[in-house]
Amino acid sequence: MDPDAVAKAFVDHYYRTFDGNRAALGGLYQDASMLTFEGVKIQGAAAIVAKLTTLPFQQCVHAISTVDCQPSGPAGGVLVFVSGSLQLAGESHTLKFSQMFHLMPTPQGSFYVLNDVFRLNYA
Amino acid sequence: MDPDAVAKAFVDHYYRTFDGNRAALGGLYQDASMLTFEGVKIQGAAAIVAKLTTLPFQQCVHAISTVDCQPSGPAGGVLVFVSGSLQLAGESHTLKFSQMFHLMPTPQGSFYVLNDVFRLNYA
Repeated sequence: MDPDAVAKAFVDHYYRTFDGNRAALGGLYQDASMLTFEGVKIQGAAAIVAKLTTLPFQQCVHAISTVDCQPSGPAGGVLVFVSGSLQLAGESHTLKFSQMFHLMPTPQGSFYVLNDVFRLNYA
Repeated sequence: MDPDAVAKAFVDHYYRTFDGNRAALGGLYQDASMLTFEGVKIQGAAAIVAKLTTLPFQQCVHAISTVDCQPSGPAGGVLVFVSGSLQLAGESHTLKFSQMFHLMPTPQGSFYVLNDVFRLNYA
């Protein structure tokens, strides 16, 4: 497994799905998954999708600036650290953000998101 | 183990040590540890300390804005996501940064840093 290739493929897929069909992100999480969104902890795929699909904006476009990744240990996980900006529909400015993901392998040879932390970068 | 307590104690200790005696950070890393500093990957405690002690500034003070943490899986690890700012000696402005740590338990009941990713938040 090449962690850089896993990270790049994941990041492309995640943000394209977020911007195109947010409800489909549910397939990337499992019951043990945890999202901390701006300091609020949410556990489990269903609750995470409920949160992501009810954020106070509809259309958005992510632009990714940096992607760093590292293997997370002997269990075959991959840590992904992303920085970028978020353009909301109808807003002229963009919001800078940082986000980390901990991807874990599935028996089917894919990965799911075990850990997800999102923070806006306040100036 | 309370991940929030582990994260808070680690963050206090890490940045106080960074600002007071950077060379002493070596005790927090092991041979398997990896640091990605502004996109550059460095492996192992000795190389990480060499990097941290030769950054192009001497005195600095970190101010922490947010600390998020989550358990990283059955191995007992803790993921810590930090945002804050960095004041360099002789500079009037501060640098915003985001940093993540993956802490793993040691047989002695403490934690070491397995993964560390640091990024300045460019405006």
